[in-house]
Amino acid sequence: MKKNEISIQEKQPLLLTTGEPAGIGMDVVLLLAAENKLQDFQRPIWVTADATAMQTRADELMATGALKRCPTWQTINIDTDDVNTEHLTKQVTQQNADADHAFILLNIPCAAPVSCGQINISNSAMVAKQLEIAHTLATNKTAAAIVTGPLQKSALIEAGIKLLDGTMFSGHTEFFMQQSGCEKVVMMLANQAMKVALVTTHLPLKDVPAAITSDNVRQTVQIVVDDMREKFGLMQPRILVCGLNPHAGEGGHLGVEEIDIINPVLKEFIKAGVDISEAMPADTLFTPKHLANCDAVIAMYHDQGLPVLKSHGFGDTVNLTLGLPYIRTSVDHGTALDLAGRGGASATSLYQALVMANEMADRSIVNRPLA
Amino acid sequence: MKKNEISIQEKQPLLLTTGEPAGIGMDVVLLLAAENKLQDFQRPIWVTADATAMQTRADELMATGALKRCPTWQTINIDTDDVNTEHLTKQVTQQNADADHAFILLNIPCAAPVSCGQINISNSAMVAKQLEIAHTLATNKTAAAIVTGPLQKSALIEAGIKLLDGTMFSGHTEFFMQQSGCEKVVMMLANQAMKVALVTTHLPLKDVPAAITSDNVRQTVQIVVDDMREKFGLMQPRILVCGLNPHAGEGGHLGVEEIDIINPVLKEFIKAGVDISEAMPADTLFTPKHLANCDAVIAMYHDQGLPVLKSHGFGDTVNLTLGLPYIRTSVDHGTALDLAGRGGASATSLYQALVMANEMADRSIVNRPLA
Repeated sequence: MKKNEISIQEKQPLLLTTGEPAGIGMDVVLLLAAENKLQDFQRPIWVTADATAMQTRADELMATGALKRCPTWQTINIDTDDVNTEHLTKQVTQQNADADHAFILLNIPCAAPVSCGQINISNSAMVAKQLEIAHTLATNKTAAAIVTGPLQKSALIEAGIKLLDGTMFSGHTEFFMQQSGCEKVVMMLANQAMKVALVTTHLPLKDVPAAITSDNVRQTVQIVVDDMREKFGLMQPRILVCGLNPHAGEGGHLGVEEIDIINPVLKEFIKAGVDISEAMPADTLFTPKHLANCDAVIAMYHDQGLPVLKSHGFGDTVNLTLGLPYIRTSVDHGTALDLAGRGGASATSLYQALVMANEMADRSIVNRPLA
Repeated sequence: MKKNEISIQEKQPLLLTTGEPAGIGMDVVLLLAAENKLQDFQRPIWVTADATAMQTRADELMATGALKRCPTWQTINIDTDDVNTEHLTKQVTQQNADADHAFILLNIPCAAPVSCGQINISNSAMVAKQLEIAHTLATNKTAAAIVTGPLQKSALIEAGIKLLDGTMFSGHTEFFMQQSGCEKVVMMLANQAMKVALVTTHLPLKDVPAAITSDNVRQTVQIVVDDMREKFGLMQPRILVCGLNPHAGEGGHLGVEEIDIINPVLKEFIKAGVDISEAMPADTLFTPKHLANCDAVIAMYHDQGLPVLKSHGFGDTVNLTLGLPYIRTSVDHGTALDLAGRGGASATSLYQALVMANEMADRSIVNRPLA
């Protein structure tokens, strides 16, 4: 170990949820582990999964030839009925990580046996439990970041899994928001070319203009500014903002939302010393000249920002949730049920999500070392 | 000259309008001419301008040092009162192009002396006359393509220049549409990375969904298919189409225009044997995997297609008008009045517009050799 380098044990782990056990969540962990890619991060990797199912999946992938060698891991059995207390942290941190193993498996047992590609809603509670444990360990800074694997939303809904407010489960992001008491989060996609945050996300295009309110723009900008500081360690982030309309409304000739809503909010931030643009034409903003001088872009809606980002991504795009009290990145693929256990899954997205989470954990000013 | 190569004289010229004489339209022609770049096209280059103003501009650019040497050109005086007949063609084609000159100047006199950067609406009729002459020469196939330099729309409006239907002048595209009797044209932007045609162009975002009608989508697709065949020589063009909504509506969960409007029209074309997709998520479509297997993309609106295109453009993006009975490309900059005669103008955009026009002229199946 080089001088001044922090040992793996001293750094907080990255916590990875494998999600739906019938999907490829475990496969992609095993693929990275077998290639020693989980050692790239100089942090312990904690993985939530069913220990038996993980071993079975490894055996299946060995049989297909997808795994050249079987990675090893260290299993910690945790009391899943007692996850909202310091008890959980004690359980996991009292174990000494063994550097010979690729990762630490936090064993969260499935209620029913796992069959590759066969969703069993008896196991949906175990999927939700992974998220609850991840939330707890990230909130109390035991884990430096959460990286989420894919789940099957429809299975959790069918199983009757609910959010804290009693409404039906509707996704990772809403789960973490409610657990954290957040009223607003911001979806950001990032790759080596750029980082793009969205004011609105999955809305029909006709509903976008009405969703561009002063409050929405203000909250989005504030979250991006705060998280670029707190989670990316950039004290004075440089942010460029797209207008809603073509040519950013061209002085009102092509729409008035820039004049009426967006620019007044942006001027508040500029006046407060934030390094942020007024509304810019999107087809000017996303050129190398501007991107070279900005840390993040805020786009008003999905197809204004994501086609250009993904066109430069070549598969390395990571989904981040800003505004949560912890770092959360996500794979950008689904459960791919037809590939589970068969060896055809690609671990690229998971690897990139880990790279981003690790980089943020290193740069974050809100994480503190493991107690 | 290589065997089977057609001499410059046998190929139809590219016709370049310099537009507003007080702007940089003439500057960029002179810059290319001085660098022998106008010889790259193996075609005569015809330039509409005032001969005196062109000489003065050349002198001014020589004085600034922007021109290292003064290019030469051959001036043809034409009867500008008689542009709608074969007379015009005879006037210009009876001249023998002199290969020692960089271009042929079709002299269209200004009514008032030209001062760099100073718009004089007495000269607006001369700007409109350039377009009229370009239209005539392209319509009767004397010219292989029109390449338009920048004009100042407000000056033509102030001067009372009207379109054929009696409404006020509103731009190059509307001018050529009315002269040609076209009811619909399609704006396409193109660079080395991709070609993107738009169903709607300069509309406030809130007005876009209502403009996505079956007729509009059908006409746009038909024009793109026809022009990819006729002007790009691609008999079976491969076309990918974006949905209107994020994730192309995700089966109706994020908008219904794909199901109700877009896909039914696209299915008509598919049924008719056109190689075209149904509505695709824009953030999937613009990735290398898909772009590598397509000749043109149709986007539903401005900021869905142009940010991604221009992000890959590095200044080589060209604006095309599809649906006219001739090839027309355009520079993507304005008159830049403050740069005229001063040497700061960049001729990159004009060069790319010429490259594209020349390529299309070579591939076009509608152009015939000069009679």
